[in-house]
Amino acid sequence: MLQSKLFTKILREVPKDEKSINAQLLIRAGFVDKLMAGVYSFLPLGLRVLERIENIIREEMNNIGGQEILMPTLQPKENWEKTDRWKYQEMFKLKNRSKKDLSLGWTHEEIVTPLVKKFVKSYKDLPVYVYQIQTKFRDELRVKSGLLRGVEFPMKDLYSFHKDEKDLNQYYEKVKTAYFKIFKRCGLEKETILTLASGGAFCEYSHEFQTVTPFGEDKIYFCPKCKIAVNSEIIERERHQCSNCQNKDLTVKKAIEVANIFKLDDRFSKAFDLSFTDKDAKKKLVLMGCYGIGLGRLMGVTVEVHHDKNGILWPKEVSPFQIHLIQIENSVKVKSAADKLYQNLKKFGLEVLYDDRKNKTAGEKFIEADLIGIPWRAVVSEKTLAKNSVEIKKRNEQNAKLIKIDKLLPFSYV
Amino acid sequence: MLQSKLFTKILREVPKDEKSINAQLLIRAGFVDKLMAGVYSFLPLGLRVLERIENIIREEMNNIGGQEILMPTLQPKENWEKTDRWKYQEMFKLKNRSKKDLSLGWTHEEIVTPLVKKFVKSYKDLPVYVYQIQTKFRDELRVKSGLLRGVEFPMKDLYSFHKDEKDLNQYYEKVKTAYFKIFKRCGLEKETILTLASGGAFCEYSHEFQTVTPFGEDKIYFCPKCKIAVNSEIIERERHQCSNCQNKDLTVKKAIEVANIFKLDDRFSKAFDLSFTDKDAKKKLVLMGCYGIGLGRLMGVTVEVHHDKNGILWPKEVSPFQIHLIQIENSVKVKSAADKLYQNLKKFGLEVLYDDRKNKTAGEKFIEADLIGIPWRAVVSEKTLAKNSVEIKKRNEQNAKLIKIDKLLPFSYV
Repeated sequence: MLQSKLFTKILREVPKDEKSINAQLLIRAGFVDKLMAGVYSFLPLGLRVLERIENIIREEMNNIGGQEILMPTLQPKENWEKTDRWKYQEMFKLKNRSKKDLSLGWTHEEIVTPLVKKFVKSYKDLPVYVYQIQTKFRDELRVKSGLLRGVEFPMKDLYSFHKDEKDLNQYYEKVKTAYFKIFKRCGLEKETILTLASGGAFCEYSHEFQTVTPFGEDKIYFCPKCKIAVNSEIIERERHQCSNCQNKDLTVKKAIEVANIFKLDDRFSKAFDLSFTDKDAKKKLVLMGCYGIGLGRLMGVTVEVHHDKNGILWPKEVSPFQIHLIQIENSVKVKSAADKLYQNLKKFGLEVLYDDRKNKTAGEKFIEADLIGIPWRAVVSEKTLAKNSVEIKKRNEQNAKLIKIDKLLPFSYV
Repeated sequence: MLQSKLFTKILREVPKDEKSINAQLLIRAGFVDKLMAGVYSFLPLGLRVLERIENIIREEMNNIGGQEILMPTLQPKENWEKTDRWKYQEMFKLKNRSKKDLSLGWTHEEIVTPLVKKFVKSYKDLPVYVYQIQTKFRDELRVKSGLLRGVEFPMKDLYSFHKDEKDLNQYYEKVKTAYFKIFKRCGLEKETILTLASGGAFCEYSHEFQTVTPFGEDKIYFCPKCKIAVNSEIIERERHQCSNCQNKDLTVKKAIEVANIFKLDDRFSKAFDLSFTDKDAKKKLVLMGCYGIGLGRLMGVTVEVHHDKNGILWPKEVSPFQIHLIQIENSVKVKSAADKLYQNLKKFGLEVLYDDRKNKTAGEKFIEADLIGIPWRAVVSEKTLAKNSVEIKKRNEQNAKLIKIDKLLPFSYV
């Protein structure tokens, strides 16, 4: 993409109420725009990151048999009354012109359960794994952490349906593994910790994936031996010890929940009478699990974890572009060499942001490139061309090096 | 995809209040599920069609310089008061827990105009073309046409920003051409007619793309010479004649509006003071255009236009799969030949729905394949294998033919 065509520009100022690093950097660099508290637009650069994250999640969900669907935002009150969750405080409620009570979806158990019921009759129809990547709404009173806590935000929610507990348990473990793959690909492997948490109304425990960051809203008790943690909400109940090795020497860390997984058992299948005829000809309730990941939150936390004083450092797989090509000095010779390189890199299948702007100095271009945070920077100037070269620098390293233009492809540095 | 794994199944019954052909066929075949009037879930087959349509639109929007963004559903009252459109009847309104007035977006001029204002200062920053593919909400009182009129529905909305009328007019014509490309790729070229319509509060005229179908809600006056039409809403004003050749011999047709394009001029830039400094150093208002396409509606109208008594006939580019491979009789020999063919077709890059189900007769499989409506059907059975062949049939043709298995690839029939 030509940076001269990109309609967003680096902004000097961000909204005064944005205290979080992720929002400050993402707004200044033109990734997102704040419409109101907890509600953001994704701009071209930000939408590219969101799509990268989406595709990683989609691939890993498909790998564990997930079938993608898309359920509505508008949901009828009846469904929520069946599960006694209409009272949920953070649910947006509204009426249509016929005075029908509606809510905006903050989760979809009340929709997916009767949906799957239409297609499941026998044990032969199970298991079923369906997921969606869809916008969720939560009427949060206090919103102050940028993309870390949204009022409107993109989420992946997977629901699984099983004939028995063994099958549910096996799939639950599969999802755990898939989630770790996702966080690894998003560059958050090291910071993301499997954390035992309350199962709420559904079960004794759920699992959270907590990414350690100083701005996290949660407190977790980390066991350095097992590399797992316990959420502070149940640490008393767990008698201040690791659930695996009973170690009591736990480290307290601040973290943000980027995902959670629940065994729902028959909580929802009972409410909607989602049952099946088993091999033994008996009618049984389907057992369910649900598995969420917040995509906007994941994007925000990536910035919280991967930034320095000059800007963002996108991990490779979620970066909006793979390489930031910068043309400086803008002579005919430099322009034509850089233009050619841009075309070649694109032909080679690379996603390139090409800073072809005429009214910016080299210094300005470098500062903006650091803020945007693409992993590789390639500079073409009179100086580099004198040596028939391109100057290559990694965003997270200090030193640049010269590489002969004809050696740049295949671009093995990505 | 293995049909045995697909969680949806052909349904015998559809909701009694679904009178439209598109909803009946799409629900029976498992493409969509109705949650309530005008609100549908897209199931795996339906989501695939939606994604095909999305990608066609995305490609054509990118081709005319469109930059994709994603704006929010939740919108603050203040923005709508600035344009005096808070009173709009079909807008869903709600309050959050802090009593702030919000609406659900049914269009995004009130959001995109102040957004673009943040980045446009000079004529050098223009033109700007931004679009999104996003879910819209309209509080319709009567909803009866399946996907043709939604309460919650996916839409593509493009907004263009120009320094003068000439630039706006040129881009407006470019969008027209892009739209015809889209409808051609969606298999609706023949039926979709450029129609002069009222410009409402914005301008004298707008243009609609009306697809002719007996279940259309609009009436258009078609000029057989110029192949364009006039919407009945302005036919009096136009003195019952073609706007191009003044022909008065117009044919009345029923049609459904699948897209509309408007010149907004300075209606919104004035409200939000979106201005720029021109070459002559004068401050001027930006001129705008907006360009919508309803994706769900496009999917619905495709079914209205392309179906027969046995089911849907998807046009090639929007079909959920390119080929429906059917294994019958289910001997080890047939299964292994069909499995191998499935793998080979996939390796060749084809999207294949493979009916590998064991508990269905050939007749049942054919009836379901016709209902689902993939353009090509390939059958592997004892009979075809005896001739080392596969039976190939187009969905819209009566006759099947045998093709040697090793001649099937490269699959030039798609």
